[in-house]
Amino acid sequence: MTEQAPYRLYLREDQIPTQWYNLRADMPEKPEPLRLPDGRVAEAADLAPVFCDELVRQELDDAAPYFDIPDPVREMYRIYRPSPLCRAYNLERALGTPAKIYYKFEGNNTSGSHKLNSAIAQAYYAKAQDLDGITTETGAGQWGTALAEASAHFGLNLDVFMVKCSYEQKPFRRNIMETFGANVTPSPSNTTEIGRKMLSERPDSSGSLGTAISEAVERALNIPQNKGRYTLGSVLNQVALHQSVIGLESYAALRELGEYPDVVVGCAGGGSNLAGLIAPFMRDKLRGSRPDTRFVAVEPASCPSLTRGRFAYDFADTGRTCPMAKMYTLGNGFLPSPDHAGGLRYHGMSPIVSKLKHDGFLDAVAVKQTDVFAAAVEFARLETILPAPESAHAIYQAMEEARACKEANEEKTILFCLTGTGYFDMKAYDAYNKGVLGDYEPTDEELAVGFASIPRIEGL
Amino acid sequence: MTEQAPYRLYLREDQIPTQWYNLRADMPEKPEPLRLPDGRVAEAADLAPVFCDELVRQELDDAAPYFDIPDPVREMYRIYRPSPLCRAYNLERALGTPAKIYYKFEGNNTSGSHKLNSAIAQAYYAKAQDLDGITTETGAGQWGTALAEASAHFGLNLDVFMVKCSYEQKPFRRNIMETFGANVTPSPSNTTEIGRKMLSERPDSSGSLGTAISEAVERALNIPQNKGRYTLGSVLNQVALHQSVIGLESYAALRELGEYPDVVVGCAGGGSNLAGLIAPFMRDKLRGSRPDTRFVAVEPASCPSLTRGRFAYDFADTGRTCPMAKMYTLGNGFLPSPDHAGGLRYHGMSPIVSKLKHDGFLDAVAVKQTDVFAAAVEFARLETILPAPESAHAIYQAMEEARACKEANEEKTILFCLTGTGYFDMKAYDAYNKGVLGDYEPTDEELAVGFASIPRIEGL
Repeated sequence: MTEQAPYRLYLREDQIPTQWYNLRADMPEKPEPLRLPDGRVAEAADLAPVFCDELVRQELDDAAPYFDIPDPVREMYRIYRPSPLCRAYNLERALGTPAKIYYKFEGNNTSGSHKLNSAIAQAYYAKAQDLDGITTETGAGQWGTALAEASAHFGLNLDVFMVKCSYEQKPFRRNIMETFGANVTPSPSNTTEIGRKMLSERPDSSGSLGTAISEAVERALNIPQNKGRYTLGSVLNQVALHQSVIGLESYAALRELGEYPDVVVGCAGGGSNLAGLIAPFMRDKLRGSRPDTRFVAVEPASCPSLTRGRFAYDFADTGRTCPMAKMYTLGNGFLPSPDHAGGLRYHGMSPIVSKLKHDGFLDAVAVKQTDVFAAAVEFARLETILPAPESAHAIYQAMEEARACKEANEEKTILFCLTGTGYFDMKAYDAYNKGVLGDYEPTDEELAVGFASIPRIEGL
Repeated sequence: MTEQAPYRLYLREDQIPTQWYNLRADMPEKPEPLRLPDGRVAEAADLAPVFCDELVRQELDDAAPYFDIPDPVREMYRIYRPSPLCRAYNLERALGTPAKIYYKFEGNNTSGSHKLNSAIAQAYYAKAQDLDGITTETGAGQWGTALAEASAHFGLNLDVFMVKCSYEQKPFRRNIMETFGANVTPSPSNTTEIGRKMLSERPDSSGSLGTAISEAVERALNIPQNKGRYTLGSVLNQVALHQSVIGLESYAALRELGEYPDVVVGCAGGGSNLAGLIAPFMRDKLRGSRPDTRFVAVEPASCPSLTRGRFAYDFADTGRTCPMAKMYTLGNGFLPSPDHAGGLRYHGMSPIVSKLKHDGFLDAVAVKQTDVFAAAVEFARLETILPAPESAHAIYQAMEEARACKEANEEKTILFCLTGTGYFDMKAYDAYNKGVLGDYEPTDEELAVGFASIPRIEGL
């Protein structure tokens, strides 16, 4: 029976999922496999120098529907999970909508975002494999912060390559990673070969995620005695797997309320929170028990991979040293405008999300930055949570869906993921408040420059 | 029966207290009354121009044990309350202590601290009295942020006078208040008479809480048609009353676990979280049912009102326009060293807390800043919450208590309040990480300068 939903529904700790759900197992057509720069399909032995063995297994397995969550991972999840499922009563009232708006709030941990869900898993597997250290890159800083916390917990060294413009503009993000014991280096740096190459070509480069990835991979491969590995906070199948805790908890909480969403909305940069949020609901759709659920990916108009990108094999990094994935991409050479605040700046998109979009199971919309911040401020004042700009993309779209319900007088149930908090994004809020935040959208000509960097590989 | 405590225990929303508890009702000797500058006892009519009527009633009533929490206040509490009661398993393991350490985490709301508990009440009463706006001052920024959120919720104008050095050093704190719609002015400012006077005497003044209070009160009195009031986030009896939700929820959660604390620890600046946390446990002590509970107030060595101050009538503000309270004070002219990071900078202390200390019901300790930050970093890495520096005073002392339990092999139960998060204190963390944070303690000569500002009033 449906009971009155509380503002915040917390499941019990014993309701934290014991297994992650692998959405690929239920997809009628699987995402295309990763390929090496020479076009060959990547196998476990190819990925093992870069990723932990167990993570390679998770990355490549598109058949097993469930993976056990190791006890030490679940133990650390207990520090902040289950995260609350919230009912946006105040927002509903303000909109005057008959729709019910639920959001899964993933910002209630110190890292401030959902990234911690995968950071804990990746740090744990590195420790379990007896590694000395791990490396990564971070842009807006959420992933780096999450991984710093997880690494501190499991006692691992961590090297973070932070996109230089973020390193300089977000010193507090750097400070928080350092407080958790991480080494943070601005990228491009002179500590790696690829970094030195980038700097020699463009000494004033403010960096990019793609370059930082290349540097972090190089650093991992150079940790002595094969005791280092690289980690990535989004895009990968393994990350989508770990993030399924978001969807599984949402599913269980809604079930307690006797609810099922008609529309599921998530912001999409690399696709990690979106893939995790939708997982069990998409499973129902793919299996035919809930064929009518609508899924909406929301991306920034300034970095519109799903709505304006190409569905093609492309490199994960600018250095073109990582494997290629079949995904929606703007080209590994695409750089979003510096006018664009916050994360969601990646040129590509999770192969799982890309495939679902390509095959018609998922819709995508691109939204303007100022509209997103307007929604963020309205949401903050009503719901008393200051959202990260990334999360606010989902808020904007959920509000749009709720307004449409008002127009049509439909009592739909809307679910979105509030991925994180905006404490480290106050510069962008300040710019918005002052009316100086812009609304950049790449022209077709600008997109063409990025598309030119997509490799052409015979027969793919 | 005692069951295994979860990492985070969330009570249900229907367990949010329906009444605040007024500790004064159970005190064998009441705190001395507020007095006007001329020495006369302050009555309701004296306070009514400055505070909302209902808040005046709460301020002056030392007999009623309970006050109903209005429905709209409880409704807004539901957005973030009940706050979790956490078991610090990771910290216990790291310390190797037989003690059980619990903490009430009040930082899980956007304002990032417990201040929201009273901000909601004060904003609500202002709205219920049909006021146009309220004013306040803020130092570290937690109170201003909380009040901005509450004012946005209830639709009130808010003027915040922010101590100038914080205004300049913490632009993000200002930005977040502005995002919630508040007007933020650096203090001293040229927008008030007292501010202009201060600026004419010391044009380069970086401000103080005492001055900002004077400006906020003056502004409130100048809002047309008697439609403005002033609010204060600590020290006052009404604030201690509202903050009793911290203690009442802790009490209920511990009862569910079959636990009762042997030691209750709180940081103390103005005393608001401490007074709220200890309330129901102190009630039991005062009534004789739990005579052995130990209460510990933790203050910074750089602003040691309870441990080195005088128990005397003193003004609440530097402008000496507010009423006087009998409290432990360093003198309204005392200014803590700029070397001191974070809040807990007030010259006085809650009259309730002061009286309990004076009458022997509560202990107080003063701790060094670098010790506090060392505890903060250790706690962050273990418990995956980045504490506010203020809160870390309580963490430090709780760790000391747990270490003493290890020495004595005693399985005590320790409860402390983690009042808030440190996202806006990264400069101080950075200074600590770099080893450049100082450990200032005022000399007796420096304290004497502050003491000289304490008024001498015949017969008091």
